[in-house]
Amino acid sequence: MAQKARALYDFEGELGNGELNVLENDVLTVIRQDVGDGWWEAETSSGQRGLVPEAWMELISGGGPPAPPPQSGGPPPQSGGPPPQSGGYNYDDDWDDDEDDDDWDDSERGSVQQQNAHHRPRKDSGLNGSGNFDLQPANRTAGKKGGDATGKGTVKKGFANRFSVFAKTGGEAYLLGTTPKSRSMSDNPLYRIIDSEEGPVWDYVGEGFTVEIKNPKKATKLKGMKTFIAYQVTPSNTGIQVSRRYKHFDWLYERLTAKFVTIVVPPLPDKQVTGRYEETFIEKRMDQLKKWLFRMTTHPVVSNCDVFLHFLTCTDDKEWKRGKRDAEKDEFLGAAFFQVIEVPTTPLDIAIVERQHENFNKFVKSMEASMTQISQVIHEHSKKHVGPFKREYQKIGNAFTSLASSFELDTRPRINDIDAPPEGSQQLTDAIKFTGTTYNDIGELFAAQPRNDFYLLEDFLREYSGMLSCFPDMVHFHKHTISTVKECQKQREEQKMEFDEAEAIKTRADVVSYSMMAEINHFQRQRVCDYKANMQYFLREQIKFYEAITEKLRIALSRYENIDV
Amino acid sequence: MAQKARALYDFEGELGNGELNVLENDVLTVIRQDVGDGWWEAETSSGQRGLVPEAWMELISGGGPPAPPPQSGGPPPQSGGPPPQSGGYNYDDDWDDDEDDDDWDDSERGSVQQQNAHHRPRKDSGLNGSGNFDLQPANRTAGKKGGDATGKGTVKKGFANRFSVFAKTGGEAYLLGTTPKSRSMSDNPLYRIIDSEEGPVWDYVGEGFTVEIKNPKKATKLKGMKTFIAYQVTPSNTGIQVSRRYKHFDWLYERLTAKFVTIVVPPLPDKQVTGRYEETFIEKRMDQLKKWLFRMTTHPVVSNCDVFLHFLTCTDDKEWKRGKRDAEKDEFLGAAFFQVIEVPTTPLDIAIVERQHENFNKFVKSMEASMTQISQVIHEHSKKHVGPFKREYQKIGNAFTSLASSFELDTRPRINDIDAPPEGSQQLTDAIKFTGTTYNDIGELFAAQPRNDFYLLEDFLREYSGMLSCFPDMVHFHKHTISTVKECQKQREEQKMEFDEAEAIKTRADVVSYSMMAEINHFQRQRVCDYKANMQYFLREQIKFYEAITEKLRIALSRYENIDV
Repeated sequence: MAQKARALYDFEGELGNGELNVLENDVLTVIRQDVGDGWWEAETSSGQRGLVPEAWMELISGGGPPAPPPQSGGPPPQSGGPPPQSGGYNYDDDWDDDEDDDDWDDSERGSVQQQNAHHRPRKDSGLNGSGNFDLQPANRTAGKKGGDATGKGTVKKGFANRFSVFAKTGGEAYLLGTTPKSRSMSDNPLYRIIDSEEGPVWDYVGEGFTVEIKNPKKATKLKGMKTFIAYQVTPSNTGIQVSRRYKHFDWLYERLTAKFVTIVVPPLPDKQVTGRYEETFIEKRMDQLKKWLFRMTTHPVVSNCDVFLHFLTCTDDKEWKRGKRDAEKDEFLGAAFFQVIEVPTTPLDIAIVERQHENFNKFVKSMEASMTQISQVIHEHSKKHVGPFKREYQKIGNAFTSLASSFELDTRPRINDIDAPPEGSQQLTDAIKFTGTTYNDIGELFAAQPRNDFYLLEDFLREYSGMLSCFPDMVHFHKHTISTVKECQKQREEQKMEFDEAEAIKTRADVVSYSMMAEINHFQRQRVCDYKANMQYFLREQIKFYEAITEKLRIALSRYENIDV
Repeated sequence: MAQKARALYDFEGELGNGELNVLENDVLTVIRQDVGDGWWEAETSSGQRGLVPEAWMELISGGGPPAPPPQSGGPPPQSGGPPPQSGGYNYDDDWDDDEDDDDWDDSERGSVQQQNAHHRPRKDSGLNGSGNFDLQPANRTAGKKGGDATGKGTVKKGFANRFSVFAKTGGEAYLLGTTPKSRSMSDNPLYRIIDSEEGPVWDYVGEGFTVEIKNPKKATKLKGMKTFIAYQVTPSNTGIQVSRRYKHFDWLYERLTAKFVTIVVPPLPDKQVTGRYEETFIEKRMDQLKKWLFRMTTHPVVSNCDVFLHFLTCTDDKEWKRGKRDAEKDEFLGAAFFQVIEVPTTPLDIAIVERQHENFNKFVKSMEASMTQISQVIHEHSKKHVGPFKREYQKIGNAFTSLASSFELDTRPRINDIDAPPEGSQQLTDAIKFTGTTYNDIGELFAAQPRNDFYLLEDFLREYSGMLSCFPDMVHFHKHTISTVKECQKQREEQKMEFDEAEAIKTRADVVSYSMMAEINHFQRQRVCDYKANMQYFLREQIKFYEAITEKLRIALSRYENIDV
């Protein structure tokens, strides 16, 4: 029996985004409560389906099962505040069957990895609605079974919760040296961290390249039953175009996050349930995928890993399936990946590593908080541009227009006649009318402006927020690495562990610490570069905006110059 | 027994303006309900006295006489809307004894005119609080006893309500030719209306001059018991400075409105009860008096009348009193003034005059309505500049500042060390911090801006609103003139009146119509001139404002240029 809910407040949904418009006291049929990120799917009495913010709704008792208790941890909904953005929710994969059941059905459903992909957690861009960052870790490894290769019974108990990221990605097994090694690779590292002037950094392997993504094409299969969008992706080093769907990106993302424990693999743009064939959505998603690809392409490690190159270059269907199988069988996933990294021979001082760790953790938390603030502020500011600011200037415009209309009524009494006003009067009226139009236009400029600056800045901040959301798991993994090392040293001091074994563990732990250092240095360097570019872009657009206003006003002013008085 | 009232809403008064701060449900003792313009004087429980908006208050029954019924005609108070501005109220003269009982006491209290001055109606600037225009006529002649010289029993009944402006200013007596004439003047007109290319206009008599007003001085008398402000007024044609107080202006205003029925004598700036020795108030009032003097000085008739010249030039105390007595004994007051105007000999066509009259009336009503709108809009807009807009930009500023603070935490992990971030990182942090300061500064620019444009435009509109408020009485007078003429023609047609008598009445009515035409032509010409100048000024300041923002942003942008990435 369908559950009913009553709207507590008016909600103006973005129709193009699959949201519903509801008025206070509207009663809706709730279709799904587990859409995520504070959204429900519901149906109006007129049969329209779409999303409504959970916080706006009140379940009506007797209409179905009792309402689930509110989720703790999240902020309470602010009455009158903005609803969560639909950009933030994400349906489960298997719900969205349009994007799911096509050529992928013939791949090995039975493989561990493929199953994993279907239980992948939601990708959280880090920004929930109303511009708030979700400070929870992206939890990208939750539900992963990455421990398969490493969980072979030799783990010493007590080091870490075996359900933690550390355990599940094989951290313990790696540190204790119990991960099975691939014959060829373990002795021949593929990736290297070198000590540079800027400290430990990932060594670039191979040549740099860029990737172009364009021409999103709507395609159908199964005699038109299935529709999907295929993006044309062209890496600069091959120049060969490949066609990729969102689900291919999704698969790649899944592989990359499984593989790299200490590397920032930002979440993909969210899936969208409705409106995903609308042009603006497609363009927007393509832009986000482009940024994501750019981010991956500029990473010295990611840009050179097999699965990424396979994604970028494979044009042949059979070849694709083979590469896909290989990637899904990759032994150097999670912590096992540390086996193929070569680091400087200098052993690290644990106390210093811990302080570095602490500093970076503080930095991340502070950056998260300030990004929350700035995103919220510019989100609200953008809304004001589109609504109140526009109206404000248009009110001024209308007032001048109305003044001009009254001045139109100027006539001059003459002896035995009524005369039209002199030219000067009409010129004044026209100039004031023009001033009215000018302020109306300025109102339009205000409404249009966020597209040129604030929305882009928001997108940029959202991207960084996504990147930041990768750190908690990394930090967690690293922290457990350090505590494992410390525990081993303690055991050695208590003669419960051999010196060599403890040293070997410390050496392996250093690889983790070195990769964290390299990744932090990479991130910080990128951050300076990206913020510089984006702030410059933002300020340039702001300048253009105020210049456009000034120019409009100048033209209006010029209309007064030649008024004959 | 004192009456009590309860505050319905919070009210944040301007303390410097004699207003009280009250909170919802505060109970106050009502001191006066007849303060005017929607204000009451009240006392808080802590003994503080001041003004509160009537619409905010609810009388508590049992505490005194029942509340008077609300005044009809005025707009209902908008809950949450702005309270009336204290600039709009005006205490009776005799309440404000500080400004009343000094050297004026020795003038002839017994004279009709002096008594009138004490029952002068409130001067309404035409703009009440919240930027609304009061569309009621200024009623500047109400309470005048100007009919004295003309009410000598010969008025034919039925032409007009004898309490109307028309009757009271001697309109009937003038038209019917029963006004006693001064021997010398009636045959020798002092003022002339000529037919120019622009239609009938007032002929300028004498040379034009300007008036300077400056150096407001706080002076005391009666051994410091009385304090007043004396303004130094210097006409350009004499170059001799005279010292005038607000009450002298008030007296002059009284004389001019008594004298000129068809000439726009705009109201003076309002009296103020509290805070009138504060520097900003004094400067503001001086500025308003200056505008008022300018308006009078540029009027071809007013600028050359004896009382105005006496006000501008008399330096001697005895001389002053003599001139004052003369002015108060002026026989050519009100309608009698039409006796000293010479007009073109062409008789006017009543039908055309009526149409001119109608057109102008429409114009005035339409202009009043659009001025109400525009004043309200810019009043609200100014408030937004000072409050929400400022806060909005400062929120952006603070968000950038907070982002910069988090970026300060950037440190770079090194082998066995923690390093300060490279110069580029600090440069970025500094640039973002500077951007934060920039948006804070822009917020301040917003808050400061209304002083440069919107407030001045409001002042200008208020001045014009004051001028418009003079028209209803003029229009009323003129309308009665026309209907009297039509009535006489009817009587003549019915042979109840001699042809010559009816013609003489028509000739005298033409003088009224000609003066209306001359005044309308004068007003419209001034309007084009004034609006041109004020709109230009306004737009120039708006341009400067947006340029200042652009410039600030440009400087902020330049901080990013040399960031080392």
